[in-house]
Amino acid sequence: MLKKLNRYITLLSVSVLLFTLTPLAFAQEAASGSNTIAIDTVWTLMAAFLVFFMQPGFAMVEVGFTRAKNASNILMKNLMDFCIGSIAFWAIGFGIMFGTSVFGLFGKTGFFLSTANPATGEGLWQFAYWMFQVVFAATAATIVSGAMAERTKFPAYLLYSVFICAVIYPVVGHWIWGGGWLGNKGLIDFAGSTVVHSVGGWAALAGAIILGPRLGKYNKDGSSNAITGHNIPLAALGVFILWFGWFGFNPGSTTSGTNLSIATIAVTTNLAAAAGAISAMFTAWLRFGKPDTSMALNGALAGLVAITAGCASVSPLSALIIGVIAGVLVVLSVEFIDKILHVDDPVGAISVHGVCGAWGTLAVGLFAQASYGESSGVGAVNGLFFGGGLSQFMTQLLGVISVFIWVFGAALILFGIIKATAGLRVSKEEELKGLDISEHGMESYSGFQVFTTQ
Amino acid sequence: MLKKLNRYITLLSVSVLLFTLTPLAFAQEAASGSNTIAIDTVWTLMAAFLVFFMQPGFAMVEVGFTRAKNASNILMKNLMDFCIGSIAFWAIGFGIMFGTSVFGLFGKTGFFLSTANPATGEGLWQFAYWMFQVVFAATAATIVSGAMAERTKFPAYLLYSVFICAVIYPVVGHWIWGGGWLGNKGLIDFAGSTVVHSVGGWAALAGAIILGPRLGKYNKDGSSNAITGHNIPLAALGVFILWFGWFGFNPGSTTSGTNLSIATIAVTTNLAAAAGAISAMFTAWLRFGKPDTSMALNGALAGLVAITAGCASVSPLSALIIGVIAGVLVVLSVEFIDKILHVDDPVGAISVHGVCGAWGTLAVGLFAQASYGESSGVGAVNGLFFGGGLSQFMTQLLGVISVFIWVFGAALILFGIIKATAGLRVSKEEELKGLDISEHGMESYSGFQVFTTQ
Amino acid sequence: MLKKLNRYITLLSVSVLLFTLTPLAFAQEAASGSNTIAIDTVWTLMAAFLVFFMQPGFAMVEVGFTRAKNASNILMKNLMDFCIGSIAFWAIGFGIMFGTSVFGLFGKTGFFLSTANPATGEGLWQFAYWMFQVVFAATAATIVSGAMAERTKFPAYLLYSVFICAVIYPVVGHWIWGGGWLGNKGLIDFAGSTVVHSVGGWAALAGAIILGPRLGKYNKDGSSNAITGHNIPLAALGVFILWFGWFGFNPGSTTSGTNLSIATIAVTTNLAAAAGAISAMFTAWLRFGKPDTSMALNGALAGLVAITAGCASVSPLSALIIGVIAGVLVVLSVEFIDKILHVDDPVGAISVHGVCGAWGTLAVGLFAQASYGESSGVGAVNGLFFGGGLSQFMTQLLGVISVFIWVFGAALILFGIIKATAGLRVSKEEELKGLDISEHGMESYSGFQVFTTQ
Repeated sequence: MLKKLNRYITLLSVSVLLFTLTPLAFAQEAASGSNTIAIDTVWTLMAAFLVFFMQPGFAMVEVGFTRAKNASNILMKNLMDFCIGSIAFWAIGFGIMFGTSVFGLFGKTGFFLSTANPATGEGLWQFAYWMFQVVFAATAATIVSGAMAERTKFPAYLLYSVFICAVIYPVVGHWIWGGGWLGNKGLIDFAGSTVVHSVGGWAALAGAIILGPRLGKYNKDGSSNAITGHNIPLAALGVFILWFGWFGFNPGSTTSGTNLSIATIAVTTNLAAAAGAISAMFTAWLRFGKPDTSMALNGALAGLVAITAGCASVSPLSALIIGVIAGVLVVLSVEFIDKILHVDDPVGAISVHGVCGAWGTLAVGLFAQASYGESSGVGAVNGLFFGGGLSQFMTQLLGVISVFIWVFGAALILFGIIKATAGLRVSKEEELKGLDISEHGMESYSGFQVFTTQ
Repeated sequence: MLKKLNRYITLLSVSVLLFTLTPLAFAQEAASGSNTIAIDTVWTLMAAFLVFFMQPGFAMVEVGFTRAKNASNILMKNLMDFCIGSIAFWAIGFGIMFGTSVFGLFGKTGFFLSTANPATGEGLWQFAYWMFQVVFAATAATIVSGAMAERTKFPAYLLYSVFICAVIYPVVGHWIWGGGWLGNKGLIDFAGSTVVHSVGGWAALAGAIILGPRLGKYNKDGSSNAITGHNIPLAALGVFILWFGWFGFNPGSTTSGTNLSIATIAVTTNLAAAAGAISAMFTAWLRFGKPDTSMALNGALAGLVAITAGCASVSPLSALIIGVIAGVLVVLSVEFIDKILHVDDPVGAISVHGVCGAWGTLAVGLFAQASYGESSGVGAVNGLFFGGGLSQFMTQLLGVISVFIWVFGAALILFGIIKATAGLRVSKEEELKGLDISEHGMESYSGFQVFTTQ
Repeated sequence: MLKKLNRYITLLSVSVLLFTLTPLAFAQEAASGSNTIAIDTVWTLMAAFLVFFMQPGFAMVEVGFTRAKNASNILMKNLMDFCIGSIAFWAIGFGIMFGTSVFGLFGKTGFFLSTANPATGEGLWQFAYWMFQVVFAATAATIVSGAMAERTKFPAYLLYSVFICAVIYPVVGHWIWGGGWLGNKGLIDFAGSTVVHSVGGWAALAGAIILGPRLGKYNKDGSSNAITGHNIPLAALGVFILWFGWFGFNPGSTTSGTNLSIATIAVTTNLAAAAGAISAMFTAWLRFGKPDTSMALNGALAGLVAITAGCASVSPLSALIIGVIAGVLVVLSVEFIDKILHVDDPVGAISVHGVCGAWGTLAVGLFAQASYGESSGVGAVNGLFFGGGLSQFMTQLLGVISVFIWVFGAALILFGIIKATAGLRVSKEEELKGLDISEHGMESYSGFQVFTTQ
């Protein structure tokens, strides 16, 4: 009897345990797991919102660094590349970037967000992931408007916006982030020095070449005239907004708030930006005799672009060095593109995003440290300066060259076709009068006396 | 002996389990549960901060779309409606909106945040919830300043600010979100197309009617003159800021970061805004011959306002369609109100917030899909186009009409009383000179030559 | 046999429980614990990003409240104090502030983030903590540029930036937040009314005294001329951005998202700001006859600065009273410093940050309530008005005085040495021409006609 009671009590206790503790623990697992998903979703969305906010950052930089008579036009381009890009990326781009891969070259499924499903956790996550990706696509798209400012036909720019977000950008994205051939080779481009910024920069280069320089930019002897921006406070505001947004761009690229390396990434991002601004300022000071505000602002962007590939793989000190070099590079590149290549890039977009994007991608092959890459999940890779040999650098170089060939080539063809059909450039009269009046029938600063020089 | 030992061991084991595992599991439940509350609080506060940031968004839009001589005045109104609104909503509004219901019409408890208590988790949550709600109240309030710009006496506007945040808005909020009669009927207005935007829009309509048009707005033959804004870059910045803030407004309205439908809501919000901007641009292009920047900017806002009610109930494709229609609607409505009704609304606030808010509320009755509404917690409702019949649409229509009657009526009375007592409109001389000088004794652009036309 | 079976079953069951439930529960503990760390990291980083965004807030306020001919210069100073400050705080400042204490006066370890390690959770947290702290250091630094605007040599400002972020600020930070003597005495300065704002304000006072007033500011009879700002919309935008950033500054200072008092802190912060703006507006209205927009904007900042020390220790009603007093104080202080002390502070930085920072620090000794301080973790302290006697107030007073002596003294010496060596002030010709041209070789508003008065 006692035995039975004993057993009864024991089994009862155990049963109680099994039927209370176990479900409790499983419930806990569920709750804790769903908390993890929630933290990742909250982080990814907040980061996406910050990256979205880079749109007015670009808009203010481009407005500020160009002339008052074209302000509404450039605002409209910045607005529309995001709007058109959002829809093109939803319909086509996201599927090409992240769909089932065709030979590692492009994806072929998931158009119109068709694989996302609001009824499941995985489906809901896909919406969050799309939100994060669409603001990246739009960043690549909007870089181009600055280099093509003050002379591009508005309808031509709308056409361009469709193709960069639907095809040109997503193909690169697939190669590196979407399961494509470059990612499989081990290329590290954590937040997109190449995927986003070089894509924008090389497309800008193609566009600026095909467009030709603004009226009055070059003299008959080949010398270059400075065409100064009309609103430096807005340009500075834009740079600060971009820096702010970059804290979504880089740390957010973990797409996980439970990956604690978001902290290191924020630190490397910040130090590279600071170093870029300082070194660009001193470079300009040495070359031109004065610390030019525009160059310091572009230096901050140069540092940010350059650290974007390696932000999760390098130490704070390396980030600082990468930023310093980017700051020097951007000043020299702006001069080289303007005075040697005679390509007219009103805001320096090719130098900031193309050249410094390439530099940042290569820098991963030099400065990567296994301890940083491991904790962030990028992979325990050492660059050349940390005993890793040349192999990572060569992979990075391959990525830089491949992406240049694809983007520059595709953009040349795209802008060439637009030029031959819809027309790419406004008439001389329209350019002189300003695109606000000629393209949009409005003034940007009604009530102010504005001198529309040249 | 063995039996005893057996029992001893067994009970000991069980005891150990009961005294270690159980508390552990309970501690887990507590930790995991407190994590859930923390995620919800962090999300709700971050969203509230984003919604707060819509204040400078509105300020920049209204400054940019009006004349330079009234810039400081409109900034001051935008600042003060938030400041006064915050205190009025703390003292009175929150209690009317969320207090114990009196016949489903208004609340009667919780004034001065008296039910919130810093010593308990529930009490702390109420502070977070209040923070989220106060920025919504202030959004409704600040919509009106645009429609009444360039001619309203400053003290009159201060008086208005008290009443909209203390009474007019909270009553609607109670009806729909606070346990009142419209919410009980099943009205779906997830983030406030009606509660916030139509309230602002209809109050703006009442204000603009009682004020009358600006000097020089209408000719003797009844034709209308365009009075152009003085700073389109600031207006565009404002729209981008509002779009950014809307990612707090709509996804934040879950007031829960563990509700993963925040991801879908972000997507629908973004697509509707993009579609609204594009369709407003093309509508303006077709009607006026040029793609007007102001109209495209207002189109983005129109899409955002329209998706606000249904953002958690509709698919991305439906969101896009809702946005497209809002973009057409806002252009036609701006023309109709200006040229047919002869109501002078300098920034188009009545069309953007009132008309598109109504459209968005009705659209839920057409486009709602149970799969979206279920996962977001709004409810598994299907609209007319998804097999749900007309009943939801009729409920939405009832809400639109009821809120119009209350808000338009109450605002007419409020502005009527202010006009009859403190005075609502500045003198002709003051209006011509500009409200910056006459009301605030200052210039907004000292050092610049500004032409104060009309 | 049965007994054995009994025991066997029992032990087996228990074993199963011990080997499945226990690890599960421990795994849960780990998962739940890592979620907690993730929430705290996400919150702290997001708050840091918001505080970073205060940089363009300060830049826009200072640009807007000064003259157009000095706009690029002041932007450059705002950019560079953040960039230089970031690197100085990384190399030196953080170690002095949070390193192992030397007699409670300064820290001596942790330079170059040497104690942070990307391979451990604790190490990663240190990166997040540094990110939060560096934006605070830069806030203290950037306050000074406003008071020294329109006449300071650019290289002198760069030198100053190094020292405030490397030494002057971190020493105060160590005293109060880093384990130093004032913190140990029980001083409460939750988010830095004294640590950040008074440090900036008192350094600004020293700088403005040594620099002397701008040309044309004072007449021979000692009367003062108003030198009006050139872009009030940008100044207003700046204030709104600062308010937005303050939601990172104050609630973020928990450096924990699982500390739910972040909600109360957001509420007290918002009410104090609103009250400050309103009371400054009415004070200016009474004294000058019109509700000056600049004063209302400064009133919002005054309220924010004042609530910063006590935001986690006081009730919403107390926050409102603290804000009201700050709003009155800032108007009187601006007049006093301008007209009685004859110190030329173009943007009112000394009054907003120094005076209201001191007021806010003292106010903790008056308004603290144990129920608020306990839940936030600040400590269950009651101020004078809530039965706590004078002791907390005296501690706060000691803090205010000690920090004033250190900062004002150190800054006087610093600016004195700079004046005697590199030179602190531009020439009369440069000042008249504007610092944009003379220091940076550029114009801020190319294409606009700008009158460079005085």
